[in-house]
Amino acid sequence: MKEFDLIRNYFTEQAVKRKDVILGIGDDCALLAPAEQQHIAVTTDTLVSGVHFPVNTDPKAIGHKAVAVNLSDLAAMGAEPTWLSLALTLPEVDQNWVSEFCAGVFELCEFYNVQLVGGDTTQGPLSITITAQGLIPIGKSINRNSAKAGDWLYVTGELGDAALALLHLQGVEKVDDVFKADVFKQLDYPKPRVLVGQALRNYATSAIDLSDGLISDLTHICEASKVGANINLESLPISSIMHETLGQEKAIKLALTGGDDYELLFSVPEDNKVGMETALSNINVPVTCIGQLNGSDKITTTLNGEPVNFEHKGFEHFSND
Amino acid sequence: MKEFDLIRNYFTEQAVKRKDVILGIGDDCALLAPAEQQHIAVTTDTLVSGVHFPVNTDPKAIGHKAVAVNLSDLAAMGAEPTWLSLALTLPEVDQNWVSEFCAGVFELCEFYNVQLVGGDTTQGPLSITITAQGLIPIGKSINRNSAKAGDWLYVTGELGDAALALLHLQGVEKVDDVFKADVFKQLDYPKPRVLVGQALRNYATSAIDLSDGLISDLTHICEASKVGANINLESLPISSIMHETLGQEKAIKLALTGGDDYELLFSVPEDNKVGMETALSNINVPVTCIGQLNGSDKITTTLNGEPVNFEHKGFEHFSND
Repeated sequence: MKEFDLIRNYFTEQAVKRKDVILGIGDDCALLAPAEQQHIAVTTDTLVSGVHFPVNTDPKAIGHKAVAVNLSDLAAMGAEPTWLSLALTLPEVDQNWVSEFCAGVFELCEFYNVQLVGGDTTQGPLSITITAQGLIPIGKSINRNSAKAGDWLYVTGELGDAALALLHLQGVEKVDDVFKADVFKQLDYPKPRVLVGQALRNYATSAIDLSDGLISDLTHICEASKVGANINLESLPISSIMHETLGQEKAIKLALTGGDDYELLFSVPEDNKVGMETALSNINVPVTCIGQLNGSDKITTTLNGEPVNFEHKGFEHFSND
Repeated sequence: MKEFDLIRNYFTEQAVKRKDVILGIGDDCALLAPAEQQHIAVTTDTLVSGVHFPVNTDPKAIGHKAVAVNLSDLAAMGAEPTWLSLALTLPEVDQNWVSEFCAGVFELCEFYNVQLVGGDTTQGPLSITITAQGLIPIGKSINRNSAKAGDWLYVTGELGDAALALLHLQGVEKVDDVFKADVFKQLDYPKPRVLVGQALRNYATSAIDLSDGLISDLTHICEASKVGANINLESLPISSIMHETLGQEKAIKLALTGGDDYELLFSVPEDNKVGMETALSNINVPVTCIGQLNGSDKITTTLNGEPVNFEHKGFEHFSND
């Protein structure tokens, strides 16, 4: 359908023109010239309508989120984002929808100097797959499997607001009208912690982005690094909105298990703490120490030093089935 | 849904282990080490069930085709395929289906030494998006915009059999039982012309893979290179099955307009003809000269020297709407 070909015009009208893109959209392939002494980090994420975002989500938010979740994966490796390939499947061509979607995509691309180098547009049920690439100096990537017992655990930002917005949509919780804009911004416009990820290259022993929920994602680090962990629940960075809406216990539970935060969880050895804090001091993103890794094979939680047992379950697609 | 996470196991059980893959599937990103003095070619293609393949297609064929159409784009640039990222959206987890699908994916990966470095599996209507990457020595890519008037036009293989299979499925044409296996192999298991593409690096002035149909794809070359073309219809490589099933006129029309061939169309200057033929002599893929580029702004067709006017219309998704 010719209309689908026309969408390509939206993709080529982007402001970012990177010098390492030798050939952009328009031929069988794009051609890229990676910098010397760098590895390429590559990640792929799909968002399906009704699964990864509510069906009625603003198209600009969908475009933003599709890019953000991929940049978030690059951030968790410490990579500098460079190139995107975008596959957009649409039930029908709605010019306004596509225009808004692209606005969401390109806003983040321009902010981080990322160029869209490939696109495919097809007809079908709404879904978006993005493959994002980035550069990382050889030997400087932050992997999941290098955390050590004794390292301190940190998270960026605040946890749980996106999950709270989703619970509100599902009618499970009720967010006060004055707070709605804030929590929905966390759900619809997550901020990939790109600069934090790069700043952590020399200090963090592991990192992961929080997509499935804190416990679930921490489990990935613990399994890969063969360590255990204890989380100090009183230290979890929880927004005042969460406190006010849910009360402490429920708020903590949501901070532990809610998905879609796209904050970074990372581990830092005692000797690197000051260096890490200095490296992050120029980036306006709060980080909070929430616990410590240990030599056990478990994840435990304490509240003011007392062991507490929360049900550990992260977000899973269709987990209610 | 945990079942979807388990699919990841199928993706990690691959035979190909490239030395330039520093970190494969399992972290936030894969890490790649591109060779020096090479550009990276990158392409993305989505296949949606019911649009790009019939709903009942054998899962092995779907896996094969999803990889083949992407390798075909790399071939058309002259790139050597290296890495794949695969996003698979499935309505439900059917272990047999996934196993067969992966068999189709990995058969081609192993043949061309391509490693799957990223995967995402989500629940939703069946579709597959692959981003394929490859390497190409700097300055050796075959672009669409460098063809010149006077260059000879060539295609690999035979044209139209895949489109004939589709017409049979749609009940528009009837393929004799003895021929069915052959034409459906062309539709379900297209061969990406990877080695031909690389062999053409020093000889072809342009190349494109035939996904939309000969006329449609030739139009892309002509527009990008600002040339016209004449096709000698009597030279079109048409299978004996096409001749027998459709007769000459209909067979020629289908060879001109049918999609899904995934053969290469390329242009070669007079001075490079012998070199090209020598370079291809070790690759067991027939190539046929089908016409010549010229200084006009049109694509014309002749039959034994006489001008003929065929309706020019390539395959478009849902073009019957």
